Parts: sequence; structure tokens; C-alpha cells
Amino acid sequence: MQDIEILGNKNEGLDFIDKTKQKRFAFSLVISYTATSEIQGITIAGEHPDLIKYTGPADAEFIHYGYCKSISVIPMTPDGKPTPALLTKTALEAASIPSIVINAGSKIPPKLPFIDMNLEYGKNISSEAALSQEEIRKAVEYGRIIGRFLGASTDCLVIGESIPGGTTTALGVLEGFGLKALVSSSMPDNPTRLKNEVVKNALKRVQSNDPFDIVAEIGDPMIPTVAGILSTSSEITKVLLAGGTQMAAVLCFAKSMDFNGKNTAIGTTSYITDDKSANLAETVGQIFDIPILVAKLRLGQSSIPGLRSYAEGFVKEGAGAGGASIACMLKTGMDAEKLLLLTEKEYQKIT
Amino acid sequence: MQDIEILGNKNEGLDFIDKTKQKRFAFSLVISYTATSEIQGITIAGEHPDLIKYTGPADAEFIHYGYCKSISVIPMTPDGKPTPALLTKTALEAASIPSIVINAGSKIPPKLPFIDMNLEYGKNISSEAALSQEEIRKAVEYGRIIGRFLGASTDCLVIGESIPGGTTTALGVLEGFGLKALVSSSMPDNPTRLKNEVVKNALKRVQSNDPFDIVAEIGDPMIPTVAGILSTSSEITKVLLAGGTQMAAVLCFAKSMDFNGKNTAIGTTSYITDDKSANLAETVGQIFDIPILVAKLRLGQSSIPGLRSYAEGFVKEGAGAGGASIACMLKTGMDAEKLLLLTEKEYQKIT
Repeated sequence: MQDIEILGNKNEGLDFIDKTKQKRFAFSLVISYTATSEIQGITIAGEHPDLIKYTGPADAEFIHYGYCKSISVIPMTPDGKPTPALLTKTALEAASIPSIVINAGSKIPPKLPFIDMNLEYGKNISSEAALSQEEIRKAVEYGRIIGRFLGASTDCLVIGESIPGGTTTALGVLEGFGLKALVSSSMPDNPTRLKNEVVKNALKRVQSNDPFDIVAEIGDPMIPTVAGILSTSSEITKVLLAGGTQMAAVLCFAKSMDFNGKNTAIGTTSYITDDKSANLAETVGQIFDIPILVAKLRLGQSSIPGLRSYAEGFVKEGAGAGGASIACMLKTGMDAEKLLLLTEKEYQKIT
Repeated sequence: MQDIEILGNKNEGLDFIDKTKQKRFAFSLVISYTATSEIQGITIAGEHPDLIKYTGPADAEFIHYGYCKSISVIPMTPDGKPTPALLTKTALEAASIPSIVINAGSKIPPKLPFIDMNLEYGKNISSEAALSQEEIRKAVEYGRIIGRFLGASTDCLVIGESIPGGTTTALGVLEGFGLKALVSSSMPDNPTRLKNEVVKNALKRVQSNDPFDIVAEIGDPMIPTVAGILSTSSEITKVLLAGGTQMAAVLCFAKSMDFNGKNTAIGTTSYITDDKSANLAETVGQIFDIPILVAKLRLGQSSIPGLRSYAEGFVKEGAGAGGASIACMLKTGMDAEKLLLLTEKEYQKIT
């Protein structure tokens, strides 16, 4: 596994790889929404405010169909930077990994069958509580039910997410739990100051140390949903949390509910772990001594500028791209170079 | 497997048992609704017309929680005949078989996470078309997507259904495809004349031999959904269609879409195959030469009158009870006597 680097707990990382190599994988994409994404300048996802809500559904549809049904445009910035769902789709297809969409408070439903958590979308944390504590508890309870089913269905459950604005709510939850974190961004000039300001103001509303209060006030529906899925599925099978600091926020909240890190690894791209403005490995290390598997993708070698941009600090990760790539390499033994070739083919198909 | 009888194709039945014994099972319950159930006297499910719509959600909730959330009453007739979901829950729990709910046009959503097919409920076929052909096509397409995921997740996918009034629409579809069928009922005095009258009138509206036209006119949302799931999942894994004549209707429609019966068996209870007013084995035999696995349950030996009633012609089957019981016996080697003991315990818990 030359193109998978292990950060964090090296021994457990080697064990994780050993136990899942050539085994059965299942991929789940948790799509969600926080109105925090509507704060101008906070996210690259969606070029216009009224398009942001399509991010999750568009990613889900792209992974399933190879095109989007809810919007007619290709999920790409005007200058050709594609959604990370392109990497996800390529990896899942190359390894024949089955996938399922979980709707955890998306503002609009995707046009495909999905597991419905019947959750409201998260409010803008700059002005009000994200969700009621009741919704958070339902997200966890429903997540636990789904985790039991998905955990029993595979040797390794990969959980990705697509929630525009989600790094800001993740930062809020991490700080709410007392962690010092620097979070990644889909933009090279990470709007750190803006994110910190939003979080600082939102934190003032948190009145207690109750984890449910923290997540209700400054979180989003994705975090308790994935925490619930993680807590039951990891009792049965290996779980790869596919993402960056957002998955650190999930771990933080799950830990407050007696989850102990068992059977769990983070899976992400090197563009996240190389990001100087963030510190994923350190953040995770403050929560659990678990492995972080890093897909050393070769997008920087691509002849396609839009793909190269990932190595230049844009997008970097999302829609479970890193975890899906790792799953593909683990299941099939494919290397990152072959994966790049397939990704370029997929890119050409949609342009 | 002393308590599983094989009807239909004996050799393939033995092979099915051999290939799934002690293997991984997954159970899916497709809940749905047809307003045909509101015709007075057509179904035992729900004692009052305005309660009928809770049948599917209540079954789903009972299987997951051991009680219902959408209604406060125990899912039982006033004289103590329990929902077949009681048998399903007992069997799934005894064998630790993971389960998932698929909402295919239920009139109200169940209070748990479920796979949403985003389908309308079926209209009353005595007065109008059940669904548009567009809805039928969506049910099949979404079913095919879900079937790919579920099929890849297990060694044997059990598909059960809960749709009040569903035997009437199943009869309609079977007759629409030119089969002679006698269908079972949840009541000992099978209201055959009423069902036949409804179907005869509805058949007059069918203008073509197009399978989609037939199902749209006189079917329900469950039939195309399960046909879709079956067609893709059976490409990957064994599939046990848990039910009686309703699953025959599914087979009929699936056959019209090039499904060839591969990897598929019907799983039901002996109360259905012993039913003199129906002829499941003959009906299925007209469609495919596949095995029918029959759970020889021992409810007639129970000291509890409500359970004994199953052997006396009431309820008989539903919510995948027969298939779940077979799955439990195949996975664990448990016999029907032990299963009866566990069922009695579960019955006592809820009364």
C-alpha cells in the first residue's frame, strides 16, 4: 500500500490495512446542510448563495449517476475545478464498492433513493442555535439504528460527508469541547478569521458542558448523525471516517457518548494533511490515539488544470474522496497513478 | 433443516439452503399503501379505516423497537391476534439478522430511519389507476439502485412487505398478466368474491399488454419496487422473497423485464401453502420453476390463543414473517419449536 501513508497510531494503522485488504467495503455519503454556509465568503461550494443547497444532493447524484439530476450544470467551478465527488465516484466504480446516501438534514432531497433521517437542516450558527437538542438526540438514535445495519453489511464501512459550510460548524464543535483546532478549507486562502469570528460569537450562547447542548448550539445535523452511525457500526466492523476536521468533530462528540475509538480510522487526502493552515493529525491526536490513513493522490501530476488545483490548495477533500480512494486501493491493490488515469477519464466524460 | 419444506423446484431449493446455511443474512421490509385497502371488508389489517394506514409503519416500528411509535396501541386485533411482525422480530433478533425499512409509498412515514423511494401511495384500483406509469418506472429504477447496494451487503437478502390490501392488487396484477391465481387473505373467510369483483372491474381499464400499464392500472407501489430490488440484487446474491401471492405478482412483473428467476426463492409460512382457498405453489409454478421454502411453524401448538389463530386461518403471513423465520433457522440451525418459545416470550412482553 505504497500510496497510503499512516499518521497518528502507526501500529493500529498497519493493523487496519491488514484487516481490510481485499475485503468487502461499503460506502455511505451523509449529505447535510447548515445555513452557516450562506455567510458570504465562507465556502467555495456553490458559486451563488441559492445554489449552495444543491451541493449535497449534487454530490450524491453524481456518485450514483455520473451526472446531476437536481441541477443541470456540471458540479464544477466556472474555471474547471471539479467536485471531489468525481474522485469518489471514480474510486468506488473502479473497486465495485456499493454505496448508499444518507440524508441528514439536506435542505432539498436528492433525486435517488436514500436513507432518510427525517432531520431539519442546521440553522446559521452566527445568529441562532443550529438545532434543538431533541433533533440532536434523534440524529444520534437514528444514526445508531443505521449503524447497526450498515456495520453488519460489510468488513469496512466508509462514511463520507457533503455539507457546505461544514468546516465552520466543525470548528465550533471542536472549540466547544475545549480543543484547539485549525481547520481546513475548500479555498487556498482559508477564511480563518471569518470562521473564528462566527465561532467565537456562537460559543457565547453555549451555557453548559453538556455535549448535546454544544452540538445543538454550534454544530450541524451531520455531526450527531455520523457519531451515531460510528458508535454502533464500529462495534461490529472496521469504520473509515472519510474526511478532515469535520470527522474530528464527530469523534469529539462520539467520545462524549462513551465511544472509545475502537475499530476506527480517519481516511483523508494528502491535500488535507499537507495543509499548513490546518492540523488534522494534531487535532485528532487530542481526542483519540487512532490511525489517520492518507491517500497520497497524484492529482498534481495531471495534465488537467482543474484536477491539478487540488494539489494547489483548492477543494482538497470532500464527499468522502480520500476515504473512497483508500478503500479502492485497499480492496483492489490499485495505485494512485492508475487512479489518476481513471479520474482523468471520468473528468473528460463530464466536460 | 427439518422445519423447512421445499415446494416447487426441489433441487434448487436444496441448493439454496446449502449455499445460505450459516451465512450472512440481511432483512428488508418494504412498506407501502394502496387505498384499495379502504374498501370495506377487504383486509383484517387495521380494525378501523383510519387506522389502516398505520399498518406498514407500525410493523416497521415494531420490528425495530419492539413497540410502535406512530400508534399507541399494540398491533393486535382486539381479541389478541398479533401482527405477523411479532414473528419477524422474534426471528431476526434470535439470529442477529440486520434489518432495514424501505418506504415505497406508505401513506405516512414510519418513525425510524428508512430508505425513501419518494413514491406516492397507490390509489384505490376499484375507481382509478393505482399510479402513473412514471411512478412505476421510478419505483423500478430506484429499486434497482437499492438492490445493488443491498445485494452487495449480504449472502442472502430477505425481502418482506407490509401493505394492507396488497393481496387484492397482487391478484389484479397476476390476472392482468394472464395468470389464473387464487390468493390468500388475512381472514379465514377469504373475501374472494369481493376481491375478484374489484379486480374484474379494474382490469377493464387496462388497454394494452404493456407490463408497466398493467401495474400502473391495477398494482401498487410495492410490486415495482420489489421487482427492481430483486432484479439487481439477485445478480449478486441469493434473494428470498418473503411472502405469499404478493411475491408471485412481483415475480410476474420482474419476468416481463427480463429477470430470469436466478438465485431466487420464495419464503413463506405453511399457513399460506396449506390454505385451500389459495394456490401459491401453482401460481409461482406458472411463472418460474423456482423453489418455495416453507417455514413449518408450530404456532398451532401454542398455549396462546392469539398465536394459535395463525394455524386456524387468521393472518397466516405478512411483514416477511415466513422468510425471516426461514432465515433464522438457516443462519442459526434453530428449530421451529425453539422459535415458538421465543415468539411466546415476545408475545408476553407486549401484552
